Amino acid sequence: MHGGNVHAIQRQTGIQISTLLDFSANINPLGIPNALLEIMKASLEESVHYPDPDYHRLYESMARFFQCDQDRLVIGNGAAHVIHELLTLLQPQKVLLMAPTFSEYRQALEKCDTTIITLSLSSEETFDLSLDQLEKQLQQGINLLILCNPNNPTGRLISISQMKQVLAMCRDHRCRLLVDEAFIDFTTNESIDSLVKETAHWQELMVIRAFTKIFAIPGIRLGAAVLGDVNLASRVRTHLVPWSVNAVAESMADFLNTQEAANYLSRSVALVTAEREWIFSKLQKIAGLKPVPGSANYLLVALDESAPPVEALQQYLLQHGIMIRNCSNYEGLHHHWFRVAVRRREENQKLIDHLNCFLTQNAQN
Amino acid sequence: MHGGNVHAIQRQTGIQISTLLDFSANINPLGIPNALLEIMKASLEESVHYPDPDYHRLYESMARFFQCDQDRLVIGNGAAHVIHELLTLLQPQKVLLMAPTFSEYRQALEKCDTTIITLSLSSEETFDLSLDQLEKQLQQGINLLILCNPNNPTGRLISISQMKQVLAMCRDHRCRLLVDEAFIDFTTNESIDSLVKETAHWQELMVIRAFTKIFAIPGIRLGAAVLGDVNLASRVRTHLVPWSVNAVAESMADFLNTQEAANYLSRSVALVTAEREWIFSKLQKIAGLKPVPGSANYLLVALDESAPPVEALQQYLLQHGIMIRNCSNYEGLHHHWFRVAVRRREENQKLIDHLNCFLTQNAQN
Repeated sequence: MHGGNVHAIQRQTGIQISTLLDFSANINPLGIPNALLEIMKASLEESVHYPDPDYHRLYESMARFFQCDQDRLVIGNGAAHVIHELLTLLQPQKVLLMAPTFSEYRQALEKCDTTIITLSLSSEETFDLSLDQLEKQLQQGINLLILCNPNNPTGRLISISQMKQVLAMCRDHRCRLLVDEAFIDFTTNESIDSLVKETAHWQELMVIRAFTKIFAIPGIRLGAAVLGDVNLASRVRTHLVPWSVNAVAESMADFLNTQEAANYLSRSVALVTAEREWIFSKLQKIAGLKPVPGSANYLLVALDESAPPVEALQQYLLQHGIMIRNCSNYEGLHHHWFRVAVRRREENQKLIDHLNCFLTQNAQN
Repeated sequence: MHGGNVHAIQRQTGIQISTLLDFSANINPLGIPNALLEIMKASLEESVHYPDPDYHRLYESMARFFQCDQDRLVIGNGAAHVIHELLTLLQPQKVLLMAPTFSEYRQALEKCDTTIITLSLSSEETFDLSLDQLEKQLQQGINLLILCNPNNPTGRLISISQMKQVLAMCRDHRCRLLVDEAFIDFTTNESIDSLVKETAHWQELMVIRAFTKIFAIPGIRLGAAVLGDVNLASRVRTHLVPWSVNAVAESMADFLNTQEAANYLSRSVALVTAEREWIFSKLQKIAGLKPVPGSANYLLVALDESAPPVEALQQYLLQHGIMIRNCSNYEGLHHHWFRVAVRRREENQKLIDHLNCFLTQNAQN
């Protein structure tokens, strides 16, 4: 199960979605930008027409937004769709995945005839990637390396200089590199951290981007890949089912490069950066909790070994209308890990208060 | 190229989409139902949440609407998506297609390792399927037969009694049958004509349904398959990329079984039936044109051999802001065939007037 399944919670508990405080999904706490909501509403009236099968305006607009060549771009029905299509076309024989990381890569690979190798990230190293270990793995003939940056659920960011070392290793070992940047817009400086501009120099590079999280529109489904390999981009575009992107997602073309979008992005980063630091400092002060320093709009947290497992915490918080992401089903994590999204101060305060209560109660028992 | 590409026409001619009279796409002339538009607008505000990954409410609502078992149902990002997924999973070795028919089946099959056999429908038989010819083909070891009913672009409907004969043949020859009912809601009696209820009795049957045309929402992307083979349905659902259906499409759950929907459907069928008959009678009276009697919301028409090819007609009409579907790129048709959608009387009158002008001018030359 992924985070953000408010529907299952509503079915199981009867709690209305609108009253739930969802710290389990990593969505921008500012919500959908007003200007975008208006554009999307107007687009519904236009949905009596088929979407442009070539998505001309959307391709133009997204290439401009990402500052990438248009012929490197592939647009699909959410990042998950683009990842599945890429993997289906590449049919990589041997793939290296991190653990823990986002579970969709494995799901998608299970449709292919692929051997999956796992590189365990150590909690003692704050789940950081060791380039030495990576090199050893690549020497064994990996065809595709998948990284999530910042990683989900750890929030750890691989710097651009390290990424260039990774790219050089991949080139040496004839390995493609897929980097999922679903959360890069929340880092303090996306334009420095993102690898999109590097696609012009590295044939083996594939960068996945999504609008789901940053514009708070997971329901709308719009994702993209920017590829170093222009021929591959063209093959994926041909392979896509016609009209994969709906007309509402298509209307993002009118929003992406506006002043409203730019303002919203900078407000989002400012808010998330400040609140992430605030929550982190509060979590550190709660006896029995250990947060991992992160760069995204969420934080991974460990409960002490002596504390009850995360299921108990999850149940306790749910009774107070708060959802968190139980991370025990991530490969490489166990029953004491959970993830919380960064939200607005008032909501974050409520989370911290309830965490405090839970841990104080359990310490007394 | 499919019909309905108003975007390409706008790019090529500079004519605004809003001023185009589009007879090339087969969309309900009543437009999006108001009640549905309001529900979809409200759903945008909710799109800050991920869609329900299991689409519980949508599955319930669609099964009720189609009066089918829920476990036979597969919902996807438009009918094209569902067809592609089904074919990718089935990987049929030998497929029998009609000619002419909707081109997406061939497109989808080209991703598979499939031998495609074509059965030519004769214009002299108003493109009707001959069961004798079909039987001969099936004897050659076909794994999958694909029919579009009513057929696109001919508009010809195979009756339910004939369909049962086809199903019996398919069972005898161990052949699956995929029937695309994208336009069945426009026939005078969908509840009699549709094969959905037969899925309970025929393991080999797969019925494709779409909401695109009947509710005039091609931009929203929602399609379904109802399958005789419950295990196959379960396999396809597992195979789908998560969150394939967007939150706006998901909100159809709140509309499908309302009185507004029922009223809209009956008004649509009444309007389309009356206007189809009206256009047909007018087309018959224009010297140089021969319409094929059809059961859907469009008509296939032949220009006389002596008339200019359809490209000339298409250009002429476009100068008057009218788009028609040039059918010369359909396998089995040639440069004298075109298709027109059934629209409202005033618009249909305009089409007939311009067709009259074009043919009178050319007769005089």
